[in-house]
This record gives sequence, structure tokens and C-alpha cells, in this order.
Amino acid sequence: MALPLLQIALDNLTIEDAIKSARKAEKYIDVIEVGTILLASEGKKAISEIKKEFPNKIIVADGKIADAGKIFAKMFFDAGADYTTAICAAENQTMDELVRFSNEYSNKELQVEMTTNFTWEQVEAWKESNVPQVVWHRARDAQASGVKWGKKDIETVSKLAQMGFKVTVTGGVAVEDIKLFKDIPIYIFIAGRTIRDAENPELAARAFKDEFKKYWK
Amino acid sequence: MALPLLQIALDNLTIEDAIKSARKAEKYIDVIEVGTILLASEGKKAISEIKKEFPNKIIVADGKIADAGKIFAKMFFDAGADYTTAICAAENQTMDELVRFSNEYSNKELQVEMTTNFTWEQVEAWKESNVPQVVWHRARDAQASGVKWGKKDIETVSKLAQMGFKVTVTGGVAVEDIKLFKDIPIYIFIAGRTIRDAENPELAARAFKDEFKKYWK
Repeated sequence: MALPLLQIALDNLTIEDAIKSARKAEKYIDVIEVGTILLASEGKKAISEIKKEFPNKIIVADGKIADAGKIFAKMFFDAGADYTTAICAAENQTMDELVRFSNEYSNKELQVEMTTNFTWEQVEAWKESNVPQVVWHRARDAQASGVKWGKKDIETVSKLAQMGFKVTVTGGVAVEDIKLFKDIPIYIFIAGRTIRDAENPELAARAFKDEFKKYWK
Repeated sequence: MALPLLQIALDNLTIEDAIKSARKAEKYIDVIEVGTILLASEGKKAISEIKKEFPNKIIVADGKIADAGKIFAKMFFDAGADYTTAICAAENQTMDELVRFSNEYSNKELQVEMTTNFTWEQVEAWKESNVPQVVWHRARDAQASGVKWGKKDIETVSKLAQMGFKVTVTGGVAVEDIKLFKDIPIYIFIAGRTIRDAENPELAARAFKDEFKKYWK
């Protein structure tokens, strides 16, 4: 199984601060996420500025698109994003539109971001629409209220991977959580505050990569 | 029944263009929405600039918050928004957080934006969490693929109103669609392109208000 990629989520409030955060861990980071918080704070300029600073990283615009697929995808892709997210609640027509439109570019892909409020019927529809990627997300607000990674997360992620989606796992993922997902072909793990708020962000990022090597070869 | 309010959705790509659109129909508009497209394009500055231009209108930040409730609500409310939207897929903890936090301000309220991908169990949970407002949304991409307002929309909106939510209806609402919702206490109707793209946006807005007066007294 391929090694998972490591993504840093930049949920900073300013572009300047986000670039500083990414710079500190750059060496071990494969994917840089322009977080929803940063996007709302600074707008699409956050994507173009970060792409300019890190031209060799994969850039994800975490736009959580819910409608008007083509308008958002064009905005984000033209600004330099390689991947963009849509929220699972979006209608099928929006997913279709996003897949169709991202295929008009080369190397641009859609990720559907999931909450626990989804149905497997929706997932089947995404498969039908050729959605390439999904993001399994333990909400920040759920974490704060004490929700831990559990058996149900593992089973869901495993099933999504079996269905052929490239799966990202996110939501307060700590190094010690990584082994929970061994034997599943995880495409990307996202770490945000765990890296950004670390005393040594580069070492924090490296700890994830070392852990990946233990379980994926 | 109280007259519905009229909201203009500013899904422009620039703040300048959005302000121009709102200015043209200002006289008949009660609520101004900083659309998700505008927010993604320009960031939170769009809210503060529009609030500054229209201090006496209710301002909605259509942020479609999916997580990190307090961070987004603080960002949007501090920028001048009176209402903010969350997407229906958000976890209950996020809805709780948003209600709790908006109650710390005076006159700030949460609207949950719904797609067809919701369950009535979720709606019951929002009621439990004291969510004051919901938005029934016919997706732009669904409209484009031919989805019309139908019996199911009317029934859903009616049930939401009976449950005590203040209900907003949006999604390509034309003047001739208004009568479909008569006998339901609609809080807000949103019109976007119907007003923005009209030859005379003020007359287009007035046509909605005149129609409201026919069916709500």
C-alpha cells in the first residue's frame, strides 16, 4: 500500500500567519490546505498567495461547496487549488457539475467532505458520479465535546476505501491515532493544530511521516 | 400573518459590484445577504463593507458553517452580520455552539440552510437546540437541471413553519412562485439574480413586495 500523504490544514485567520505556519513544517508536508476559516477570512486571495509560496505542494481549497459548483470550482482552481472540497449535503447535481468541471482541467479533483449526517445512498450516488475523493471528518466541535475516534470511524473509512474512493482522514488526528487506520489504504491524513501549534512544527510533521512508514509500506 | 421580508442575495464576485446591485433595489429590500460566492471571493471584508453601506438593513452572512461554529460566528457577527447560516450537514454540537454563541449577542441569529439531504431527526435536534431559523433552499445546480418548485417543497416549508421555525425560502424564487407559499407564515423570501439581473432592479424588488401584500395581511 502506498504511504499516506500528510496535509497541513491552515485554519489561520490571516494569509501571512498561514504561510508562516506552513513554512515551519514544509519539509515533511505533501499537501497544504487553505482552510475554510482562512478562506472566509481572506477570500480566494488566500489560495493564490499560498500557491505562489508553495508551488510544488498540492493545494486544497477547503471551500465545502454546497451549490453553484462550477462558479466555486472555477474560482478555486483558477486561483491555484489542485483539489477542492464539497460538503456532503450538496445535491447530486452539484457533485456531477463539480466532477465534470474538474475533469476539464488536468490534475484537478473533487473531495466530498463528510459529516456523520450522510447516507450510504448518497455515497453510492457519488460513486455513480465518479467522485474521486472523500474526506472523513471528525468535527472540531464534536471533538471539543469529547467525541473520540472509534470503531465506527474505522469501519466507515474502510468501507469508503473499499468502494474505491481516495480517502482523507481529518479531525484532531494525533500521531497515536494513525495506527487505528493501518491496513486501510488512506490517501491523506490531515493535521492542523497538532502541527501548527507544536513547539517544533517540523518535528511534529516528521513524527506523522515516521508513523506512516511503520504501517504502510 | 406578518408580511414576509424580502432579501437580496449578493452572489457577486466583488464587493463593489455587490454594493451596486444592492443600491439599485435598496428601497424595497429588507435583508441583504452576503452570498457564499462573494464571501469566498472577497472574505469577511465583504460583510463589513456592506454593513457600512447599508447600516439599517438586516445583514445575513451566508457562510454555510459546517464546523468550528464559534470561530465563524465571531468572525461574521463582529464584521457586522446580524444572521449567519450553517449547513444542515453540520454536527449537532456545531448547531448548539452557534445558538449558544449567537445568544451572547443581541439580535444575532442562526439560520440552518437545508438541502434535500436532511432528515426530520436532524430537524428535531435543531428544535431541541433552539435553532430559531431555517432556510429551505432549491439548489442552483438543481434548478439548472430542471427541478421546479413542487408539492414536496410546500409541504416541507409548511411543516418547518408549524414547528415554530422562522422560515426563509430561496432558490430561483420568481414573483409567480410566491403564491405557492400563501397560508404559510414565511419569514423571508430571497431573490438573487431575479432582482440583480433585472433591467430595473427596484421595480423587480417592488413586484415581490406587492405580491407579498396580496397573500399575507
